[in-house]
Amino acid sequence: MSRPVDAKNPLQRLATLLTRLPGIGEKSALRLALFLVRADGEYVQALGAAISAIHGQLRLCSVCCDICSDEVCERCRDPRRDRRLLCVLAQPQDRMAIERAGVYHGLYHVLHGVLDPLAGIGPGELRIEELLRRLRADEVEEIIVATSPNVEGDATALYLAKLLRPLGVRVTRIASGVAVGGELEYADMSTLSRALSDRRAL
Amino acid sequence: MSRPVDAKNPLQRLATLLTRLPGIGEKSALRLALFLVRADGEYVQALGAAISAIHGQLRLCSVCCDICSDEVCERCRDPRRDRRLLCVLAQPQDRMAIERAGVYHGLYHVLHGVLDPLAGIGPGELRIEELLRRLRADEVEEIIVATSPNVEGDATALYLAKLLRPLGVRVTRIASGVAVGGELEYADMSTLSRALSDRRAL
Repeated sequence: MSRPVDAKNPLQRLATLLTRLPGIGEKSALRLALFLVRADGEYVQALGAAISAIHGQLRLCSVCCDICSDEVCERCRDPRRDRRLLCVLAQPQDRMAIERAGVYHGLYHVLHGVLDPLAGIGPGELRIEELLRRLRADEVEEIIVATSPNVEGDATALYLAKLLRPLGVRVTRIASGVAVGGELEYADMSTLSRALSDRRAL
Repeated sequence: MSRPVDAKNPLQRLATLLTRLPGIGEKSALRLALFLVRADGEYVQALGAAISAIHGQLRLCSVCCDICSDEVCERCRDPRRDRRLLCVLAQPQDRMAIERAGVYHGLYHVLHGVLDPLAGIGPGELRIEELLRRLRADEVEEIIVATSPNVEGDATALYLAKLLRPLGVRVTRIASGVAVGGELEYADMSTLSRALSDRRAL
């Protein structure tokens, strides 16, 4: 049941605005709003200002479509990055996760989603046109498709492989299997099946 | 692992501020921040402004300690309310839940917590002094302790009963048992035990 925004009640108004955030239901929104009412004033002001400011401050990098505050992001500008490697990702969080691992020094491309026909997301909804434009101009030799190893992520990887291979670029997929440090005993059937079929020589 | 607020990166800065909200971890904060980056600008501005404004706009009712925008809340001011009945609650959300049920027409008193010695919350941390002040002045005949039926809520109710009965006021506790519409089969042991011990004649 959605209720109209009541401008006369600031608490209800804030709670209603908070319910539009992903993963925040009516009860959580009310709890957050009441927390903010009682929280340290300086913190609440800083949070409000940071939210108000976020919209104008960030945009998509004109090269890799990652979120950044400049025309071109720091990774695309970095001359030490290996421009022959391009890692394709579904969302900015995934780029941050790979950067944290600290083992990849190539470039990135953020699709902003994965193919999901049931949700109405086709190739036109993803940043694939921008990816093709880069391949024409850049010296990319290998594209590593690092979408998540689930139905949509795999479908997106297959789609990209078909689209990109004719352009003479090598297309690879991140490895998938039992997580490092994980217990075989607790791995799910799909992961075990993938770990077996993708086995490699020692 | 908490990271310092990076003023140079507005996205990271917003995410760090969001992690201070209750129930929002690092991953959720980042997801919310990225949602706000891409969300409708008008909505984001409204949310930021509503948060910045909430701190000054609301305070505690000087009578019942509920959250309101005036010196005295609309329920305490309402002459149609039954001033002989006073419902004692742990938090403002509980008052809203009871109001939604639409069957109670007495007054309220919000404690802002329950007794929880392990968390360092004793009687001095709750709005009990304000409750005693009301009893001296008002025409209250019955106090319904409507804290949640768990260890802390029950302990708070017992404490209040001992404190208030000598003042000549009737102290009652909300009923506890199997939820209306619920299945006996799925009720937990404590609830079933309470439902049996608190059985009433038909």
